[in-house]
Amino acid sequence: MPDRLPATMRQWVLARRPDGLAVVEDFGLVTVGVPEIDDGQALLRTLYLGVAPVMLRYMTNETSFEKPLEIGDVMIGRGVGRVVASRNPAFRVGEIYQAKLGWREYAVIDDSPYFMAYRMRHTDLALSHGVSSLAMSGFTALVGMREICAAGPGDRVLVSGAAGGVGSQAGFIARALGADPVVGVAGGPDKCRLLTERLGYGAAIDYKNDDVPARLDELFPDGIDVFFDNVGGELLDEVMGRIRRRARIAVCGRISEYLLPVEEYHRHRNLWRIGLLDAKIEGFFIYDFVAGFDEFEDRLAEWIRDGRIEPLEDILEGLEQMPAALISLYEGTNAGVRMVRIDPDAERRPAP
Amino acid sequence: MPDRLPATMRQWVLARRPDGLAVVEDFGLVTVGVPEIDDGQALLRTLYLGVAPVMLRYMTNETSFEKPLEIGDVMIGRGVGRVVASRNPAFRVGEIYQAKLGWREYAVIDDSPYFMAYRMRHTDLALSHGVSSLAMSGFTALVGMREICAAGPGDRVLVSGAAGGVGSQAGFIARALGADPVVGVAGGPDKCRLLTERLGYGAAIDYKNDDVPARLDELFPDGIDVFFDNVGGELLDEVMGRIRRRARIAVCGRISEYLLPVEEYHRHRNLWRIGLLDAKIEGFFIYDFVAGFDEFEDRLAEWIRDGRIEPLEDILEGLEQMPAALISLYEGTNAGVRMVRIDPDAERRPAP
Repeated sequence: MPDRLPATMRQWVLARRPDGLAVVEDFGLVTVGVPEIDDGQALLRTLYLGVAPVMLRYMTNETSFEKPLEIGDVMIGRGVGRVVASRNPAFRVGEIYQAKLGWREYAVIDDSPYFMAYRMRHTDLALSHGVSSLAMSGFTALVGMREICAAGPGDRVLVSGAAGGVGSQAGFIARALGADPVVGVAGGPDKCRLLTERLGYGAAIDYKNDDVPARLDELFPDGIDVFFDNVGGELLDEVMGRIRRRARIAVCGRISEYLLPVEEYHRHRNLWRIGLLDAKIEGFFIYDFVAGFDEFEDRLAEWIRDGRIEPLEDILEGLEQMPAALISLYEGTNAGVRMVRIDPDAERRPAP
Repeated sequence: MPDRLPATMRQWVLARRPDGLAVVEDFGLVTVGVPEIDDGQALLRTLYLGVAPVMLRYMTNETSFEKPLEIGDVMIGRGVGRVVASRNPAFRVGEIYQAKLGWREYAVIDDSPYFMAYRMRHTDLALSHGVSSLAMSGFTALVGMREICAAGPGDRVLVSGAAGGVGSQAGFIARALGADPVVGVAGGPDKCRLLTERLGYGAAIDYKNDDVPARLDELFPDGIDVFFDNVGGELLDEVMGRIRRRARIAVCGRISEYLLPVEEYHRHRNLWRIGLLDAKIEGFFIYDFVAGFDEFEDRLAEWIRDGRIEPLEDILEGLEQMPAALISLYEGTNAGVRMVRIDPDAERRPAP
């Protein structure tokens, strides 16, 4: 039974450029007609939308990886949607795609590289995983831990931002790859309890309340082999001061500094130890690994099915929550993969 | 015709621990008997000995990769020698080996990993290459440029310490791999002239006299893809400030800071750009690549034969020059691979 399409839909646009952390007034919610599609295009009903720290930089045009966002443009964002109409044989009605849908209830996409459309194949699992473990946040955790850091048996692993969207999966993945111990860093006792009780971490460090260097010394008496870093700044320096020979550091994010002026970024005193100890620090861009996406989805789906990954999803309800969802990433109030359910019936499967 | 062995030989021992840069009085030249060999051992006539900045750290016991050097111990060092007696079928009289011979005229080695003995196969070329291009300094330049940085066509390459033992070969190798431009950094107009006139560099930056940031901007208007770093400190920071996406930095040495107390090491303000630009910084240990040594020797010998590498060797005469040779590395007075010829007849080939 095809979805019946409404005449109008809502979407969020950039209302003004944020000054520091965005506020709700920087976004505008507008109602427009549901668009028609041309040859080559498909119309998707948005089921879930994700949020990522980088979206704030889209708003300020500080990034070079997206086309500049002008005032009035629809907010850029990735999510999961169901094809409801298609004039492109590559997209079939009923299929589930992850793509750069934008912050809107329906989206027109095509198969050009811009949309980075990826068809999900494990759609018997919750479709919300299409913005968590079976999507870029899960793929990012897997690539950082497995491709960049080659984590495995014998490795002592630390993850920062461990309760966040990527970090909440990096611990499960490190354990699945055989690393031990796997320690997470997060802010506050509640999140730290979450790490050890719910997210598979063997121990947690509370950066807001613990003496972080002392805890690192205690938990890693012989040093650190692998560091998956979502935070940057001083913690990265403390870790470089404790690396073992041939340590690998994957730089995934740097949320501790995104809102600071560049003059206030941390100056690292321990970078010299990378050379001394034949270690490495490496950044990566998940879309450079697009050739591996199918295998990533298969592997992560397998680990979800056998219980080695238990996705923690932090779901807000309704498109109107999008600005709050993004802002919360900077306030550190999210736990797991924060996302917004756009279609209340997102998980309703078609009758067989 | 087998060498006739003398009864005695000379060797350098550690006389006292240096305070900062070593001085001649820290070394002692002693005469001892030429040793007998036991089963499993071979006696080598030392032909050439190399020097490397790390040897100063052996003297102060700041390194963990060598057994601690006690006062009176023979100085640790690698060189090339000819087998003159053997009670091990793996070593045949007349063969040429690179090994950890120590600073002495004759050395007893065996096939244990400690000596890292490597049999040279391209012995029709100058045997001095056994401490330069066909030895660890050449292998290090090749591994850093090819394995760590994957330099190739389209890459804009910078090398620091470009007139030094490794740097004097890294430029040739980058060009042989197709990179362009290939720019070297060295101290003083004479060395900079050497870079462009003799060592294959397309341009040179004189860190003692040039405005280095301005020269980098001029020579790399679109940024840097590959940096082979022998120097560390502020220059590394300037380079991180100018990297392109997916840049690779191989950390080979850090001679600008070896003599400083750790509190005075440079604090890096631009490390965050590694994550931003999906770049990497990586250290490496040449003996982790031992499985590749034969291929490295073949490749570098091929490039010497076809003229793509012209080894620049800076040869002092006689064992007594060893302390001066080492100290000169820190004074920056060497150009090319500094080494000492121990046997005046080193290049004399046996009659056919």
